[in-house]
Amino acid sequence: MRKRQVQSGRDGKRGELALLELIRRRTAGQRSPGVRLGIGDDCALLLPRPEEELCVTTDLSIEGRHFRLDWHPPEAVGHRVLARGLSDLAAMGARPVAAFLSLGLPASLTMANGRQRAWVDRFLDGLLDLAKDRQAPLAGGDLAESPVALADIVLVGATPRSKALLRSGGRPGDSLYVTGSLGGAAAALARLASMTKRTKSSPQSWAISAKLSAALAPHLYPQPRVVQGMWLLRHGLATAAMDLSDGLSTDLTHLCDESRVAAEVDEAALPISSGATPAQALNGGEDYELLFAAPPEARMPGMIVGVPVTKIGRLVPRRKGRPAVTLVSNASSQPLAPEGWEHFR
Amino acid sequence: MRKRQVQSGRDGKRGELALLELIRRRTAGQRSPGVRLGIGDDCALLLPRPEEELCVTTDLSIEGRHFRLDWHPPEAVGHRVLARGLSDLAAMGARPVAAFLSLGLPASLTMANGRQRAWVDRFLDGLLDLAKDRQAPLAGGDLAESPVALADIVLVGATPRSKALLRSGGRPGDSLYVTGSLGGAAAALARLASMTKRTKSSPQSWAISAKLSAALAPHLYPQPRVVQGMWLLRHGLATAAMDLSDGLSTDLTHLCDESRVAAEVDEAALPISSGATPAQALNGGEDYELLFAAPPEARMPGMIVGVPVTKIGRLVPRRKGRPAVTLVSNASSQPLAPEGWEHFR
Repeated sequence: MRKRQVQSGRDGKRGELALLELIRRRTAGQRSPGVRLGIGDDCALLLPRPEEELCVTTDLSIEGRHFRLDWHPPEAVGHRVLARGLSDLAAMGARPVAAFLSLGLPASLTMANGRQRAWVDRFLDGLLDLAKDRQAPLAGGDLAESPVALADIVLVGATPRSKALLRSGGRPGDSLYVTGSLGGAAAALARLASMTKRTKSSPQSWAISAKLSAALAPHLYPQPRVVQGMWLLRHGLATAAMDLSDGLSTDLTHLCDESRVAAEVDEAALPISSGATPAQALNGGEDYELLFAAPPEARMPGMIVGVPVTKIGRLVPRRKGRPAVTLVSNASSQPLAPEGWEHFR
Repeated sequence: MRKRQVQSGRDGKRGELALLELIRRRTAGQRSPGVRLGIGDDCALLLPRPEEELCVTTDLSIEGRHFRLDWHPPEAVGHRVLARGLSDLAAMGARPVAAFLSLGLPASLTMANGRQRAWVDRFLDGLLDLAKDRQAPLAGGDLAESPVALADIVLVGATPRSKALLRSGGRPGDSLYVTGSLGGAAAALARLASMTKRTKSSPQSWAISAKLSAALAPHLYPQPRVVQGMWLLRHGLATAAMDLSDGLSTDLTHLCDESRVAAEVDEAALPISSGATPAQALNGGEDYELLFAAPPEARMPGMIVGVPVTKIGRLVPRRKGRPAVTLVSNASSQPLAPEGWEHFR
């Protein structure tokens, strides 16, 4: 984490140094055997265990694209930024080693306003709470003043050598599973959008009840399945895995492409989140559940570390001219086109 | 490298998928023993050698702050983005293992215009040429549509365990050295700015002569000292090192702070770039040379892998109330305050 020149000169610089100081202070208590040197030098130093491979992923979140300052509480933005990266590690079955954050912010978001804490301070609350919970210490990054708020999160994880769960290992005959339930994030986002429209006010100004808070949580505070991914790797059950960030129809198409197979999804088997529609379960993004394949003879438990696991279909041979993914119901079979990519407009 | 939802929906998505395809195609020929799996899964997989430590750094570059679309050729933006990260690895003495790029771009920069190639294609020319030269294969990242162009570069490097060059190892009595010459980038930037002002035109529209091109190169195409850093580590000569990104006066202050020492710089010894002023050599940023300390008895060569090395001063004990850095000339000694952070306004 190094300070950086910004156009606004000395004042911007002072702001950055103050922000760097805030982050150093807030991460000072972190302890992690994998991080030998954290914030403060030209690079951080990570110490992999012998016979480990490193997993690296980056995820860019931009104001107006991935979050809105008038909709998302700062804590939720921080949580969501880190959750996206952790979910990629979960998809490989990796143990988190360290996180890095490149943060671009308008100066206004770095300043306290009377008794109100600075936006960035609350953003760090959300990010660091999740980092602590998932044991992914913030070990470095970069800061810059920016006309729009943006955060690029980098996660480094570790797996035993050659054991990482890939998208490409699925075979015809494998059963298909998902963790948790689907469509909850899209349903919560739709609710957030409709309430904003109806009340013509910003969610940030609402006094949010516990009930509403619970209803919005799947969108605001998704739970990356880190320990479930590690469990799958450790038990050697999954042949292929990925996380559900863009929606089942889209992500399963990718898994099929990488594994050179096709898939059938049993409509009746889908674990649809309470309050979500079937379309949201199929196409809604950002559930951050795991989608994985396992041999048909695998003895899959109904629950992995407290999270339900549901068999939703199977992998089948790929045939030219046939859709990659088919949705099978009692009445009929129909192609399931990749219809993911939900947005908040 | 995964596709990402953007607000503009399907078209933005298609644009991202096309861009992802472009990057996959352009990086397909890369080979690196350290990268077991590159672009295409949830994470990239890196294979460290036994007994190695990993160095990780991220550097965020934002349009209008770190580069200007009307001043900097796209190739130079790509080169500079990667050079910043590589220079951090150089400062640790690390061997590059892989680079990751999170790229946020307005849609217009991703599209070809008649016979003109897309901005991003030329940006990749600059980035991938340097990546190839310094053996830092692009192994992943993220893409998103953004109202301003921005690039976050992540570099992963490796050093033998506990051998990385830190900022904190300097001791009183050590000699201070820099590679190359100082102030060249600031002088080139000043020239770029004054020509733009005088001709009221954009550098992008100039027919740039070979001579002018050479004069601007220290700013547009800085050379990160990767092999020189690796040489220093291998020979065990440096007690502390960092790269000169914010200017000698600022960066040396940081090195002194981390090593809890003070420093004296001999004004007459400074290797000032041709065409640069002493002030630019002391305070100009972005030279990306190495600043390092070595024991007084170290036999330092005059050249490391083709780049001159100059002794510019020494570390001395830190005393309360005394400046961290003093500039010593024949006539006098004066405090050298951190005056770095040059900007292009």
